[in-house]
Amino acid sequence: MKFKPIEWKNDCVRILDQRKLPHEVSYLECRDASSVAKAIKTMAIRGAPAIGVAAAMGIALAGERIRTYRPEIFRREMEKVCNQMAKTRPTAVNLFWATNRMKRILNESVLDVKKKKDQLKKEALNIYREDIDINQKIGEMGRVLVQEGVGVLTHCNAGALATAGYGTALGVLYAAWAEGKRFQIYVDETRPQLQGARLTTWELLQEGLPVTVITDNMAGWLMKKGKIHLVLVGADRIALNGDTANKIGTYSLAILSKYHHVPFYVVAPISTFDLTLTSGADIPIEEREIKEVTCFQGIPTTPKGVGALNPAFDVTPHPLIRGFVTEKGIVQKPFNKNLKKLFSTPNFREA
Amino acid sequence: MKFKPIEWKNDCVRILDQRKLPHEVSYLECRDASSVAKAIKTMAIRGAPAIGVAAAMGIALAGERIRTYRPEIFRREMEKVCNQMAKTRPTAVNLFWATNRMKRILNESVLDVKKKKDQLKKEALNIYREDIDINQKIGEMGRVLVQEGVGVLTHCNAGALATAGYGTALGVLYAAWAEGKRFQIYVDETRPQLQGARLTTWELLQEGLPVTVITDNMAGWLMKKGKIHLVLVGADRIALNGDTANKIGTYSLAILSKYHHVPFYVVAPISTFDLTLTSGADIPIEEREIKEVTCFQGIPTTPKGVGALNPAFDVTPHPLIRGFVTEKGIVQKPFNKNLKKLFSTPNFREA
Repeated sequence: MKFKPIEWKNDCVRILDQRKLPHEVSYLECRDASSVAKAIKTMAIRGAPAIGVAAAMGIALAGERIRTYRPEIFRREMEKVCNQMAKTRPTAVNLFWATNRMKRILNESVLDVKKKKDQLKKEALNIYREDIDINQKIGEMGRVLVQEGVGVLTHCNAGALATAGYGTALGVLYAAWAEGKRFQIYVDETRPQLQGARLTTWELLQEGLPVTVITDNMAGWLMKKGKIHLVLVGADRIALNGDTANKIGTYSLAILSKYHHVPFYVVAPISTFDLTLTSGADIPIEEREIKEVTCFQGIPTTPKGVGALNPAFDVTPHPLIRGFVTEKGIVQKPFNKNLKKLFSTPNFREA
Repeated sequence: MKFKPIEWKNDCVRILDQRKLPHEVSYLECRDASSVAKAIKTMAIRGAPAIGVAAAMGIALAGERIRTYRPEIFRREMEKVCNQMAKTRPTAVNLFWATNRMKRILNESVLDVKKKKDQLKKEALNIYREDIDINQKIGEMGRVLVQEGVGVLTHCNAGALATAGYGTALGVLYAAWAEGKRFQIYVDETRPQLQGARLTTWELLQEGLPVTVITDNMAGWLMKKGKIHLVLVGADRIALNGDTANKIGTYSLAILSKYHHVPFYVVAPISTFDLTLTSGADIPIEEREIKEVTCFQGIPTTPKGVGALNPAFDVTPHPLIRGFVTEKGIVQKPFNKNLKKLFSTPNFREA
């Protein structure tokens, strides 16, 4: 990729500030855990895998900063940091998954604080490198879904910017493009935060893939006109039955896809599955400030005193999903059987 | 109503400039037909019935300005004006309907130019007054659909601002509210032009009705959550079989309503039916400048060089529509039988 959404550099976590894209490419140099937490909360970095990586790096950074040689104090302080990091956003499970990996390292019995710090840093960098590797595998598994000459619609940004690099849904498109296939890419602008218009367009152009942006309410009409042959979206949390939380609007898009017989695939690493949830009913949905809906770039769109709603995610029930593209292969229906197989088989690979 | 979207005043057509709402209430004083045409084209005034009224007033205004006593010259000049006015926007049929009413007056044999001018002005004012009257009747017919305590979703602006006054879809809500019923009103912000966020909110607040704005991609999720019990939209053109062109996003909303078993009604005067079209396939869909999509309130949202689409309308096939609310009553299924009855029966009234 021609850009890095996040990296560990000179003892800092360097984060590409996505709030300023596409107009300005600038980086936050986070020197402590709370700057990283703030970057996650304010969506300077967003996307389920990316915030997992950011949280892990933030925790490792906190470790570097704590000045004690006493393992118990270190452990106690670091527990606080982990809990703080886990509170930044509620829906994407990768955040908790990454935080838990860091906690596991923290709680392994090593008496030396210096060694523990190194282990934490190593684990954060592992999570980072693994994520890029996993995304590339996802792309390899999923590229078979993209046929020459088709129209593919995506929602929000499930690209390199949403991960450590390469992307999930967009990773599939990069992989298909790299094979020499040519196709049309459409993206919903994705109100209220416009991740589609601002981020997906930006990164596709960086990589030389053409893209056409539409407003969210045009997707159904494009499907009716026969322009869309495949829908690929990312995920923030997937329950064991396949119910999928993703950016608001994904649920509507899944219904429109079903109605028009357009295959609708969720593209995500296995770390996005929440093994504690049997269905999507219990996925917490973040409600964000209503001014994201009533304003745009600080300029109000509505009169004062108007109410608004701002659920940041919705849950798409599994019957609306054609399949899941993961690093271990594509999971087709029946999901109850095949998702179990995905989790239990090291070399699962179906298509 | 506490405001007038359009009126004939001091030999001018005074148009509330809707591009500046909700932040600024200002009026255009159109002194000739081309200013009115420009106001329609640039969407200073919009909404199918409103642009019909504006076109008629613009034509009458042109009549006042033409300085000749020779009926043939007058007729020829006025024909040009009518044709110019009909070219301002392609989708809403009310524009052609109103222009044709004016042409009919023009072509009736009166030899005196002064008298003809008066007749044209009278006809424009008739169209204006009739529209308000028709909207109030629509409200009276439709209010039975709105039950106490329900949630009603509307799209774009089918209110007083889209008509000579009172509104179609919103007219039904005003009438139900005036009866003492209380209910929740939700409105899609309606990208790209934000008529929902800017205009529907503004006029409902003017009239004291509470309203909650959502982004277009939240509608499905709200339906899933059981918050929406009725969807009311306006129309720009309706074919004889009931296929309905309306603001982009209406088609998706109709599919989402069907999926969630939410009644979806189109609210429009009979002048919105195009008696020359047997189906919606032949309704011309206006494609507007893509900068409406790649910008938000004038500020670019996408990087330079990104493609975009901007169909201003879509067509909802009649099977997705529960019924039509008109000034003569509510038309239920089967539409082929009941729409014929609507057009042929002076006192049609069903519910």
